Amino acid sequence: MATTTARRPVVRYAGGQRVRRPDTLAVEEPLEIRLDRGAGAETFTVTMRTPGHDLELALGFLVSEGVARTRGDVLAARHCPDAARDADGEPTHNVVEVRLRAGIVVPAARYRQISSACGICGTASIDAVRSASSHAVARDGVRVSGSTLAALPEKLRAAQRVFDRTGGLHAAGLFTAHGELVVLREDVGRHNAVDKVVGWAFERGLLPLRGHVLQVSGRASFELVQKAWTAGCPVLAAVSAPSSLAVDLAGEAGLTLVGFSRGESFNIYAGVERITD
Amino acid sequence: MATTTARRPVVRYAGGQRVRRPDTLAVEEPLEIRLDRGAGAETFTVTMRTPGHDLELALGFLVSEGVARTRGDVLAARHCPDAARDADGEPTHNVVEVRLRAGIVVPAARYRQISSACGICGTASIDAVRSASSHAVARDGVRVSGSTLAALPEKLRAAQRVFDRTGGLHAAGLFTAHGELVVLREDVGRHNAVDKVVGWAFERGLLPLRGHVLQVSGRASFELVQKAWTAGCPVLAAVSAPSSLAVDLAGEAGLTLVGFSRGESFNIYAGVERITD
Repeated sequence: MATTTARRPVVRYAGGQRVRRPDTLAVEEPLEIRLDRGAGAETFTVTMRTPGHDLELALGFLVSEGVARTRGDVLAARHCPDAARDADGEPTHNVVEVRLRAGIVVPAARYRQISSACGICGTASIDAVRSASSHAVARDGVRVSGSTLAALPEKLRAAQRVFDRTGGLHAAGLFTAHGELVVLREDVGRHNAVDKVVGWAFERGLLPLRGHVLQVSGRASFELVQKAWTAGCPVLAAVSAPSSLAVDLAGEAGLTLVGFSRGESFNIYAGVERITD
Repeated sequence: MATTTARRPVVRYAGGQRVRRPDTLAVEEPLEIRLDRGAGAETFTVTMRTPGHDLELALGFLVSEGVARTRGDVLAARHCPDAARDADGEPTHNVVEVRLRAGIVVPAARYRQISSACGICGTASIDAVRSASSHAVARDGVRVSGSTLAALPEKLRAAQRVFDRTGGLHAAGLFTAHGELVVLREDVGRHNAVDKVVGWAFERGLLPLRGHVLQVSGRASFELVQKAWTAGCPVLAAVSAPSSLAVDLAGEAGLTLVGFSRGESFNIYAGVERITD
């Protein structure tokens, strides 16, 4: 069982007074993702993440990067207990190996596609994501009511058991268009939480995520819109601000992007036609 | 002049009412960092960032990764106007080239050090950072009063001109032990904001940042503690929660780590001896 929280001693300082007490923190550990296309496993990436749902994280990351597109692209995914031991010789569960179907093309580095384009800029970045995404979210005719959407952040927080204990974890929740929670994942990294949700769906053959809403804590970056698009999810909602390039990519994808979702209100930055009253 | 904000149309939804208006967002664009050790420039990394202070970002990143340690390691740093043009043929300022002193060792990939260790785990990650850091922050005898520390988040926010306009930018501020702001940098990525601060100091020959405090918005991850350590900054304070590995690395480094810094109170997770009443 993965450990998502850890206890550490802390000194609480308040108005000149100090109190020594234990505190519960979100665990952060490295995860190495290795890919094997039949000629032995090679390191693809290392990410800092909160342990738990590691196979989902690895699979979701591969979907986001355009490496795995259908369930058949992945032959197997497992932890490598022998490959990763801590200083005490105990297994750490920090290495995941994914066996891919022969013939899968794996980019040598994450942004290689972008930097080999005519120039490196937002437009080239969007082009690179378009070529990696195989789902036409623009044609997803789902409708979501404004009141349903406005209620999602609170539903997400209510479902965050770990959040209550650490205050240190980001969350991503997959919801139906009627606001029912399908799956929730947490991580110190928002991008990891989204990858875990996407990997969960990928394992069950549920991609593309037609007709669904992905609600995330915090901000909406270019990378999160990329992940929603490659997973075929037509609506991405964030509690905080989106970046300019996140809005541009959502517009290009035909994806609905919502930000500053708080209480009764939110902003619609793209795909307003999917939001009903 | 770099563009840090951009206008986009938005539909504001509040209690069933919709208002169409322009909104100001934080710009996010890719930055490619190329390294030249005398045999031509090669791509080192691509990061999504808010334009502005790009050379500082590149230099700070190289310090954080243990590539550049002293001012003499870097012969020159400049934008490559010809290398990066957008769809309209305009220069994007999205490629920075850094000429390094001959003999500088550049790791092939970010976490190569970690994954070639005995196993991949938090302990191995800490070992990798220790080998990259050349500053003994543990011996920094600076003292900071609790009231000074508690006031920094508000000082940081007050100095964030752009924050007021977008709500979408992270900030990192370098302060003296008496709470005077030395430099402030912002970015859609908290790690980039810290790199910009470190790169600013590196350019001026101010590293290590002895006797200073680095205050950041948001959370404190392993990566942020790594950046503080490699810059020789003895105190790192965050507005939100640290992760377990951030606390462990701070303890290993002898660095003071403060979290949940809000109004009158904060938590001290490591290096409590530097905080006076």
